Amino acid sequence: RRRGFPEVVLCEGKTPEQAAKIMGKMAEKSDNFLATRADPEVFEAVSQQVDDVIYNERGRVIIRENDPLPRRGEILLVSGGTADEPVVEEAAETAEIMGNAVEKLTDAGVAGVHRLLENAEKLYRARVIIVAAGMDGALPSVVAGLVDCPVVAVPTSAGYGTNLEGIAPLLTMLNSCASGIGVVNIDNGFGAAYLASSINKMESLQKYEKDEK
Amino acid sequence: RRRGFPEVVLCEGKTPEQAAKIMGKMAEKSDNFLATRADPEVFEAVSQQVDDVIYNERGRVIIRENDPLPRRGEILLVSGGTADEPVVEEAAETAEIMGNAVEKLTDAGVAGVHRLLENAEKLYRARVIIVAAGMDGALPSVVAGLVDCPVVAVPTSAGYGTNLEGIAPLLTMLNSCASGIGVVNIDNGFGAAYLASSINKMESLQKYEKDEK
Amino acid sequence: RRRGFPEVVLCEGKTPEQAAKIMGKMAEKSDNFLATRADPEVFEAVSQQVDDVIYNERGRVIIRENDPLPRRGEILLVSGGTADEPVVEEAAETAEIMGNAVEKLTDAGVAGVHRLLENAEKLYRARVIIVAAGMDGALPSVVAGLVDCPVVAVPTSAGYGTNLEGIAPLLTMLNSCASGIGVVNIDNGFGAAYLASSINKMESLQKYEKDEK
Amino acid sequence: RRRGFPEVVLCEGKTPEQAAKIMGKMAEKSDNFLATRADPEVFEAVSQQVDDVIYNERGRVIIRENDPLPRRGEILLVSGGTADEPVVEEAAETAEIMGNAVEKLTDAGVAGVHRLLENAEKLYRARVIIVAAGMDGALPSVVAGLVDCPVVAVPTSAGYGTNLEGIAPLLTMLNSCASGIGVVNIDNGFGAAYLASSINKMESLQKYEKDEK
Amino acid sequence: RRRGFPEVVLCEGKTPEQAAKIMGKMAEKSDNFLATRADPEVFEAVSQQVDDVIYNERGRVIIRENDPLPRRGEILLVSGGTADEPVVEEAAETAEIMGNAVEKLTDAGVAGVHRLLENAEKLYRARVIIVAAGMDGALPSVVAGLVDCPVVAVPTSAGYGTNLEGIAPLLTMLNSCASGIGVVNIDNGFGAAYLASSINKMESLQKYEKDEK
Amino acid sequence: RRRGFPEVVLCEGKTPEQAAKIMGKMAEKSDNFLATRADPEVFEAVSQQVDDVIYNERGRVIIRENDPLPRRGEILLVSGGTADEPVVEEAAETAEIMGNAVEKLTDAGVAGVHRLLENAEKLYRARVIIVAAGMDGALPSVVAGLVDCPVVAVPTSAGYGTNLEGIAPLLTMLNSCASGIGVVNIDNGFGAAYLASSINKMESLQKYEKDEK
Amino acid sequence: RRRGFPEVVLCEGKTPEQAAKIMGKMAEKSDNFLATRADPEVFEAVSQQVDDVIYNERGRVIIRENDPLPRRGEILLVSGGTADEPVVEEAAETAEIMGNAVEKLTDAGVAGVHRLLENAEKLYRARVIIVAAGMDGALPSVVAGLVDCPVVAVPTSAGYGTNLEGIAPLLTMLNSCASGIGVVNIDNGFGAAYLASSINKMESLQKYEKDEK
Amino acid sequence: RRRGFPEVVLCEGKTPEQAAKIMGKMAEKSDNFLATRADPEVFEAVSQQVDDVIYNERGRVIIRENDPLPRRGEILLVSGGTADEPVVEEAAETAEIMGNAVEKLTDAGVAGVHRLLENAEKLYRARVIIVAAGMDGALPSVVAGLVDCPVVAVPTSAGYGTNLEGIAPLLTMLNSCASGIGVVNIDNGFGAAYLASSINKMESLQKYEKDEK
Ligand SMILES: Nc1ncnc2c1ncn2[C@@H]1O[C@H](COP(=O)(O)O)[C@@H](O)[C@H]1O
Ligand SMILES: Nc1ncnc2c1ncn2[C@@H]1O[C@H](COP(=O)(O)O)[C@@H](O)[C@H]1O
Ligand SMILES: Nc1ncnc2c1ncn2[C@@H]1O[C@H](COP(=O)(O)O)[C@@H](O)[C@H]1O
Ligand SMILES: Nc1ncnc2c1ncn2[C@@H]1O[C@H](COP(=O)(O)O)[C@@H](O)[C@H]1O
Ligand SMILES: [Mg+2]
Ligand SMILES: [Mg+2]
Ligand SMILES: [Mg+2]
Ligand SMILES: [Mg+2]
Ligand SMILES: [Mg+2]
Ligand SMILES: [Mg+2]
Ligand SMILES: [Mg+2]
Ligand SMILES: [Mg+2]
Repeated sequence: RRRGFPEVVLCEGKTPEQAAKIMGKMAEKSDNFLATRADPEVFEAVSQQVDDVIYNERGRVIIRENDPLPRRGEILLVSGGTADEPVVEEAAETAEIMGNAVEKLTDAGVAGVHRLLENAEKLYRARVIIVAAGMDGALPSVVAGLVDCPVVAVPTSAGYGTNLEGIAPLLTMLNSCASGIGVVNIDNGFGAAYLASSINKMESLQKYEKDEK
Repeated sequence: RRRGFPEVVLCEGKTPEQAAKIMGKMAEKSDNFLATRADPEVFEAVSQQVDDVIYNERGRVIIRENDPLPRRGEILLVSGGTADEPVVEEAAETAEIMGNAVEKLTDAGVAGVHRLLENAEKLYRARVIIVAAGMDGALPSVVAGLVDCPVVAVPTSAGYGTNLEGIAPLLTMLNSCASGIGVVNIDNGFGAAYLASSINKMESLQKYEKDEK
Repeated sequence: RRRGFPEVVLCEGKTPEQAAKIMGKMAEKSDNFLATRADPEVFEAVSQQVDDVIYNERGRVIIRENDPLPRRGEILLVSGGTADEPVVEEAAETAEIMGNAVEKLTDAGVAGVHRLLENAEKLYRARVIIVAAGMDGALPSVVAGLVDCPVVAVPTSAGYGTNLEGIAPLLTMLNSCASGIGVVNIDNGFGAAYLASSINKMESLQKYEKDEK
Repeated sequence: RRRGFPEVVLCEGKTPEQAAKIMGKMAEKSDNFLATRADPEVFEAVSQQVDDVIYNERGRVIIRENDPLPRRGEILLVSGGTADEPVVEEAAETAEIMGNAVEKLTDAGVAGVHRLLENAEKLYRARVIIVAAGMDGALPSVVAGLVDCPVVAVPTSAGYGTNLEGIAPLLTMLNSCASGIGVVNIDNGFGAAYLASSINKMESLQKYEKDEK
Repeated sequence: RRRGFPEVVLCEGKTPEQAAKIMGKMAEKSDNFLATRADPEVFEAVSQQVDDVIYNERGRVIIRENDPLPRRGEILLVSGGTADEPVVEEAAETAEIMGNAVEKLTDAGVAGVHRLLENAEKLYRARVIIVAAGMDGALPSVVAGLVDCPVVAVPTSAGYGTNLEGIAPLLTMLNSCASGIGVVNIDNGFGAAYLASSINKMESLQKYEKDEK
Repeated sequence: RRRGFPEVVLCEGKTPEQAAKIMGKMAEKSDNFLATRADPEVFEAVSQQVDDVIYNERGRVIIRENDPLPRRGEILLVSGGTADEPVVEEAAETAEIMGNAVEKLTDAGVAGVHRLLENAEKLYRARVIIVAAGMDGALPSVVAGLVDCPVVAVPTSAGYGTNLEGIAPLLTMLNSCASGIGVVNIDNGFGAAYLASSINKMESLQKYEKDEK
Repeated sequence: RRRGFPEVVLCEGKTPEQAAKIMGKMAEKSDNFLATRADPEVFEAVSQQVDDVIYNERGRVIIRENDPLPRRGEILLVSGGTADEPVVEEAAETAEIMGNAVEKLTDAGVAGVHRLLENAEKLYRARVIIVAAGMDGALPSVVAGLVDCPVVAVPTSAGYGTNLEGIAPLLTMLNSCASGIGVVNIDNGFGAAYLASSINKMESLQKYEKDEK
Repeated sequence: RRRGFPEVVLCEGKTPEQAAKIMGKMAEKSDNFLATRADPEVFEAVSQQVDDVIYNERGRVIIRENDPLPRRGEILLVSGGTADEPVVEEAAETAEIMGNAVEKLTDAGVAGVHRLLENAEKLYRARVIIVAAGMDGALPSVVAGLVDCPVVAVPTSAGYGTNLEGIAPLLTMLNSCASGIGVVNIDNGFGAAYLASSINKMESLQKYEKDEK
């Protein structure tokens, strides 16, 4: 049903054996697939059963991509710093295997707004922007205020105390002063990329109107 | 900066006099504008100062649209029932004044999945779908499982007790089993339509690739 | 007082020694008993003191069933996937030792409603349905909308971020658009099965009316 | 789809005009229906358009029952006091129009356990027991400890401060020390009665086994 | 300032070395002291520096009592079961070293009210009752409904899911239908016993009136 | 069972008619009773049916006290200011009708610790102290640090924003650095006084020991 | 003890009569005072008893300032828009009567960062900056990233849904990516100004060092 | 941009390798820097790459200070006890490397107010006071009531149960009865010291007024 999208496994809640068995079956019929939230033991178990799998440890993602889709359009990934890296990596791997060109801007904090402004062309060139932010979660508001394209916001659990494991930046994003932002679950880099990909691949209004006639 | 989009006023937190004064000024330079969260007293005050304003009472929206944009593409508004009407109306008015064609499917509850399935073509034809749901907030999961296009989910405060004024459906939507959903604030019909509009108006990948070359 | 029901021990909060001692005593007078939330060390300690005990590791359940009750009626267990397995196993073992026939439908997600509809007869044949769901917790709403029999809903802690360790699906279930659902505590497979069993074993209205006369 | 059950309208979130219009239509084809959460203005509007409607003000329920179902079996409604009356009334009206015999025990607080014990036969005779409780929500635990039949627990918002508008008794019920309890939303007398009715009307195991053969 | 009460150390948040050093100093001037929340490593460190210390492992309490106060009056400790044992032990050790006679009734669940009633004389004889309860936290309501003496309620973190690590029974206790209950922090056996001790040691009204004259 | 204590009605959740009817019946057999949470309309209804009733408007308490108990011992009521007055009044009326002497110290804020210290003798003379505090809820910690007698703490909903309608001071009190504090529900002046009264009336240890022999 | 600061009354929780009586007394000995959270009825009552009082209706503040302190230094008030006006007014009145010069920058939203940057000199000239923000509460992060002076952040309850009456911007502020921010209670314009005033009035390090010698 | 302030690294969310690499680069151009939230493994990795680094284990802080700023003014650190030590150490190291003189008063609990009063001169001499408090978080209210200087309050996660990992003292501080308090995130010793430092270094009003002329 997922139009040519690669298959995806969520490893959380599965034993390494269960995960490996599922991917073993998938490898029989698919060249490309993705597994998220995969701890090293899961990759260990999978790599013993399936060939051509690659592991992005920081993003906890397993990739098999024997027949890569061309990378088209551009999804820009914006984040504040190192602590958001796992989410950014999960999003980047997902977007790429789904056939999107990915660009990154990963040290763009709200407390240093100039850095964002210096990268304005990057922001303006993107078709969709994913913004990952922990702590105060203010980055998507500033980004969406600068651009017209759709923004997908991912709160991350980076922070402590009143960060409440990501609830604080989630609330910030849902209450954004700027419009044009869709929010996904805390740390859900996969979901952000999936949504951004479905937006990036939209056909044009012109074509739609012709088709519907 | 907002590419030809009509101006918008949020009336909540403004006195009727303040709201009327702002809209009076806007009317001097804009043919089209929109004001949300406008109670009847606000409309009362505005209509005495500005001409050509229309009031959607259920949606609490004031519209001035002397030079309408053509309605293009299609945004489908799906909801469960009468209690979500205010949010649906706010979203519909916003989407239309921003130049989108709007279709509705407003009695599609999760507890009667057949009704949704019977309207499958409506779902398949839309370029973007906005799903407004209160109570259990399960509707976006079912809809997003049926379609490939981007889904914008708006939790509504319709319900009682553990609905927690919309927190329950919000959480449901953020945790959706289906991918491709971006969530906005509780009862934020305006924000949902704004995001849907920016998606609906995407140019095609083909054009983008030609331009970037 | 519990009409012929097997005795039950909750191991959480007990040391392995305490758990083993209690089950040792129970084994002296009962052929059948059940212990839930038993970690491997608990089973280790118990199996050294009590004979004829079996361990369901995924469900964390210890069973002693030397004089099985006949399996009667039918309780259907519906769930979305592998991550809910521990809860489903706890419920299944509980229902069986209490003398109920158990059927399973374990890969029925809301994001793929067709799979549910294809299994409609399973749903219609059941006397009581237990639905275990994590993430968005939307499954019970869809199931209860399809059937007339009582539905027992168990939220599970499968998910992350705004799942809030099961609070999100719990709220979804309590706010269900569909009627006829009774909810139990997060991950409480035992409690769901206990309630379902007491419903499954109801005598008929006809008999009740004759008796009361 | 709902096996001979009367139709139901939830008035919350509908204007009096909308509610009246819906019931007007229903009256054309149904002898019996029920509307819950109906404020006096709603009844006012309805009674001007539909005949044979009765209003239970304390329960905020409108009933039209021109062809009553026989009252069969027995659902016992237990509650602690006057403040739970609105929920008890909503449940009682729902259960009766759905064809159940209803019995009440309405001044049975946990702080006076003797009163409950004095009414033991009432408890033992019931096929299903609905327990409505606000404040500490402890009543269902005590009741379910005394009986073997299924118990449906409804937390009510009666109380103040840390009652948190019913969240406190809800949590108590979900964490009950006693088994065999299914919980519904805060103040949801309707939902409790609907579930209790579907349990009360179960055919016997014997019949089920014969039919399935 | 604490009238003849033994000194007390709270070990949580202290390194074993810090805890041992503090108790070393206390042992120089006091025959009796108490340390709570002491993990085995703390006891290890302390016992190497201080003599005559005893460790109650289940209660995580270190006691030095070279000059015991006489045990006077009676504080009754009521609890539901094994999982509350750590709290009960902390409370019992605290009450005893402060010079109170302690009685226990430790398998008295709300789901089996008869067990409580069978022990009525124990309840009636006590001067103060401490009730420790996790899960639904309903026990203090039932106990306080049976007696006239002051009841000190301690919610425990025994339970899972919606127990919310003791928040659920805490709320139950604060909302109790029965009057005469003072509540302390979750798992705070020490605080419960300290309060109960200060109540148990009250001089009589008669004496007070004579003194004030 | 309530040893000579006057009867009590909680008016919240009762209609004025219901409240008046209950008090009418009580007046037939009791000289003394108390009704709490009584709005002016309730008093209006009651005073038309029952004679000798007095209304404390600020405390929302109705009192009938035709045969007053002697005021014995001393309960001290400490609070920070005018906003806690309703709770202080509810507590004072309750304590007095139950036969306790009541003293007040009502402008003792934590931000001005000197005022408390200047009133040290008042604090030392009391048998039990009730401390009502909203906002930061810090007062009971300071008071309990100064005295040895039992302290009953009542959080009040006085404050705004993060006061969370009394949750903030409630948490402060449960986490108090000082020992010997029992906490009751937010704004529960009645419950605080009931508990304080049962403590104030304790017979002495000496008498208890003689009786038990 | 409050070094020459005018006296302050918090009217919330006081009846108009109580507030008027207190201010009547204050007027006898003080030329200057301030009353916050004063509704029109309070001002009505006060103005009939005390002369020379002025009412700031939007800020709900009553001022009597017969002997104004000179306005020294500069506190800058930054906010996003009309909905924060009540908080800004409360802060401005407080700061001025305490003898601070006040500047405002009141339409500086995060979604339009350029407006802030255009007003950089205002930001740089201030000695202390108070930032009031509702909705996403992101403004203080951006401001504090631009300046070196201390920033006092006030979350406001402007917003809806997940704004949670100010909890969302509060969390944002506490988790700010930028350092140098002190946060006060939701809507607490008074407290923000009080703190800012005590900072603005600091003597210099040089003087301190000389004095301490 | 940070006026001569040493650079700062937050190690949480970085691997030891990432942290070491960043500090390696910083050491090339800065004599002084600070790294917070550094676990021993981080220090291990850093000390192998960078020379002249010192580790404060209890405060989890790495310091390199080859060209110390003179210690000027005075920041007083007040706390209740050993459990707040990590926060106090983080704050002290931060304040010192930023060039502030630091004084401590670390066993000043609210439950023993006399200890605070005995140290009044320390309180009066400070230019800024940082108060770190867990449990009830009442200390800042008492301190701010005694002094006129700005108070920075840091809630700590020391405590258990209803402490809610620091949420309880956070709320206490935000609701303080005393004015002049700015609050920072839970356990944020760094942020408290940064803010206190920026206040301590204020030039005097006199100088400001001359400069602005
Ligand atoms: N219902 C709404 N919910 C959230 N944001 C809104 C809404 N209506 C308008 N807005 C936003 O608020 C801005 C106007 O705010 P204001 O200048 O305060 O009237 C618009 O440009 C929108 O971005
Ligand atoms: N008080 C109630 N609480 C929850 N659900 C209700 C209630 N009353 C009716 N319902 C449900 O709401 C449905 C009707 O909703 P509607 O079509 O919006 O009037 C009914 O079929 C019931 O399933
Ligand atoms: N303000 C109050 N808060 C909590 N409980 C109360 C209060 N006033 C009375 N009660 C309790 O409620 C009981 C009366 O409840 P009811 O029979 O519903 O009027 C009394 O016996 C008290 O135990
Ligand atoms: N809006 C406000 N928010 C918080 N505290 C306030 C406010 N206004 C005044 N206060 C404080 O409340 C004290 C006066 O309280 P009261 O004596 O009850 O009127 C003042 O001294 C201030 O410290
Ligand atoms: Mg934008
Ligand atoms: Mg889809
Ligand atoms: Mg159904
Ligand atoms: Mg039972
Ligand atoms: Mg009692
Ligand atoms: Mg004390
Ligand atoms: Mg700064
Ligand atoms: Mg001060």
